[in-house]
Amino acid sequence: MTYATVIALLTDFGLQDGYVGIIKGVIHCINPYLTVIDIAHEIDPQNIAAGRFCLMNAYPFFPNGTVYVAVIDPGVGSRRRGVAIQFPQGYLVGPDNGLFGGVLSLSEAIAAVELTNPNYWRVGDPSSTFHGRDIFASVGAHLASGISLNALGTSISPDSLIKFPLKEVIITANHVHGYIQYIDRFGNLITNILGELVRGHNWSVEIAKLPIKTALTYNEVSREELVSFIGSHGWVEIAVNGGSAQQKLQVNWGDQINIFLG
Amino acid sequence: MTYATVIALLTDFGLQDGYVGIIKGVIHCINPYLTVIDIAHEIDPQNIAAGRFCLMNAYPFFPNGTVYVAVIDPGVGSRRRGVAIQFPQGYLVGPDNGLFGGVLSLSEAIAAVELTNPNYWRVGDPSSTFHGRDIFASVGAHLASGISLNALGTSISPDSLIKFPLKEVIITANHVHGYIQYIDRFGNLITNILGELVRGHNWSVEIAKLPIKTALTYNEVSREELVSFIGSHGWVEIAVNGGSAQQKLQVNWGDQINIFLG
Amino acid sequence: MTYATVIALLTDFGLQDGYVGIIKGVIHCINPYLTVIDIAHEIDPQNIAAGRFCLMNAYPFFPNGTVYVAVIDPGVGSRRRGVAIQFPQGYLVGPDNGLFGGVLSLSEAIAAVELTNPNYWRVGDPSSTFHGRDIFASVGAHLASGISLNALGTSISPDSLIKFPLKEVIITANHVHGYIQYIDRFGNLITNILGELVRGHNWSVEIAKLPIKTALTYNEVSREELVSFIGSHGWVEIAVNGGSAQQKLQVNWGDQINIFLG
Repeated sequence: MTYATVIALLTDFGLQDGYVGIIKGVIHCINPYLTVIDIAHEIDPQNIAAGRFCLMNAYPFFPNGTVYVAVIDPGVGSRRRGVAIQFPQGYLVGPDNGLFGGVLSLSEAIAAVELTNPNYWRVGDPSSTFHGRDIFASVGAHLASGISLNALGTSISPDSLIKFPLKEVIITANHVHGYIQYIDRFGNLITNILGELVRGHNWSVEIAKLPIKTALTYNEVSREELVSFIGSHGWVEIAVNGGSAQQKLQVNWGDQINIFLG
Repeated sequence: MTYATVIALLTDFGLQDGYVGIIKGVIHCINPYLTVIDIAHEIDPQNIAAGRFCLMNAYPFFPNGTVYVAVIDPGVGSRRRGVAIQFPQGYLVGPDNGLFGGVLSLSEAIAAVELTNPNYWRVGDPSSTFHGRDIFASVGAHLASGISLNALGTSISPDSLIKFPLKEVIITANHVHGYIQYIDRFGNLITNILGELVRGHNWSVEIAKLPIKTALTYNEVSREELVSFIGSHGWVEIAVNGGSAQQKLQVNWGDQINIFLG
Repeated sequence: MTYATVIALLTDFGLQDGYVGIIKGVIHCINPYLTVIDIAHEIDPQNIAAGRFCLMNAYPFFPNGTVYVAVIDPGVGSRRRGVAIQFPQGYLVGPDNGLFGGVLSLSEAIAAVELTNPNYWRVGDPSSTFHGRDIFASVGAHLASGISLNALGTSISPDSLIKFPLKEVIITANHVHGYIQYIDRFGNLITNILGELVRGHNWSVEIAKLPIKTALTYNEVSREELVSFIGSHGWVEIAVNGGSAQQKLQVNWGDQINIFLG
């Protein structure tokens, strides 16, 4: 372990209640030399799909060895497992509820443990509603400080981890049918259709059966006009130049998106 | 003082205007080796009770020696005092308006000063509307860098500090009557009734005179069902599994909560 | 370059999507010893005027040598330039779209380059919608790590940078006419009228042709009453003690403000 070991945090705790600050206090008490980086904390409350997406998108951009502590945890206190997962590039720590399914779709896990060893929890008798504070932050800080994965609990098969897979994309002769997997702050609609499926084709997203313009970026269409392109994350995305595609189209997470392949 | 000295920040400045960034710039100019940790900045504007609660909850989880700079300051520029308070575990810096009453209820102050020495302010002639920038951040950074409490101003009695006490809990033969002291981002209702008052009893919160389920965590009830438990902070809390108790009950800060003791 | 070199970030990315975390991951991969400070990330989406204002306000409070990476970039992927600008006190990196006009009004640029050298980008073939990640964060981290300005691209004249000037203030015999250049989280209205224009006069802001009270701070008027003063940033500001002037007056960005000079 070197000085610069990073803990990256992603939660739905928001920034109005101090829960994130408490997590950082716990980490800092264990090892004040860790570098803590926030990925996002304003994820929609209890929206595991949103957290899954954001964590997957951020994962490729952090240094090797990063420990990700991610907590969107509607099942806290139930029998859902707390886990730590080792990847070639780093470690994930948090609830086994699908939140890690995106990263698991990008990279194969080397090993995983269920967090059963209370020696690395903040207290032996954790709160039943705030495992982020009492288990995950503490375990993450120990892991980033050199404690081995195996010390943290019982080994489990990475295959047993909950994947929360995206619904399948359906490909027909002239169409690709997918759905909106994420909507960001700008109202951009990110589909579950990978750019690879359409790249090289003469493709266009159809809205109410009419095609919208396909481009490389927002600015190739007029202000307030719809446009689709392969986003910076690699998925087909629908946006409005200078506006919100969500507002313009009055759509929501999970709504179907159809692409015509010319 | 060691390298890892921490300044923990709590404000109602929000994250849309750059006020928090300015505070950090000021601290960093004084001592670039301090570790600055955000507790929360999206506290409701001018809601001293909310800040009081969040600071009290975060306080036990930070390292010894932490300097807390907390600024929710509707009285800035008036005759309210700016203070620094020494505790066995750290220091508080900010306006004397009740914001520190929660921590004062947990731990006895060793000493306190009114911030009357402009040598440790950012400028001798501070703005009358942004003491966070011109006085508190600067004083906090100096304190975290080894300046003694007494150097910062005139000694005052800790007894003279504004406590902003919670309203009293009323205990009758079969009931405990309290109120909602805080509502968090998830819509969880946190009462002013300490878990110790009900633990060991067969207790239940009554809503419209009907008891709701008492449990250890959210998941012991069905989705969308109300539940109460002793929260991770130690207070009796009312929640909805997978939803917002505030929305379901249409209640607000300060509303009365009754617990039946069986 | 010393250990404590600072990168200060300002974006409209918000804190719900992980974009800010990705930026920090990129910076950290290039140089884990940089200190990254957030100025603000909840700037209104695509509101260049708001970003311009916040960056200008924060600029005087950061250490010498700070590299500011600022990304509010509705024109990403179009022909707007990406630039780095050297000032006596630090460097700005981001899109040349007016975002830097506020700092340029405070301080004279020493030199500027268009970011044409892909050696300092994250990848040679950047996304056309996320230059924050693929160009600006990477260039900023290199600049903060000792790479020279000239290495980053083609030298351009600082005079050619987009200034996004404020509309002119009009001064008549008895009046100063300006407008609301910014509204903050508290609903305070910040005009484009510099305090110097009115200081020393017997001035008052007129709302519906009636003067409101002029004071030094919020507390010199009753609760819920309007007040105007010279704000901590140096501009004439209109506020409500314990409330929001925006809500009380039902005004918006760009609305006209008239000051009577007695």
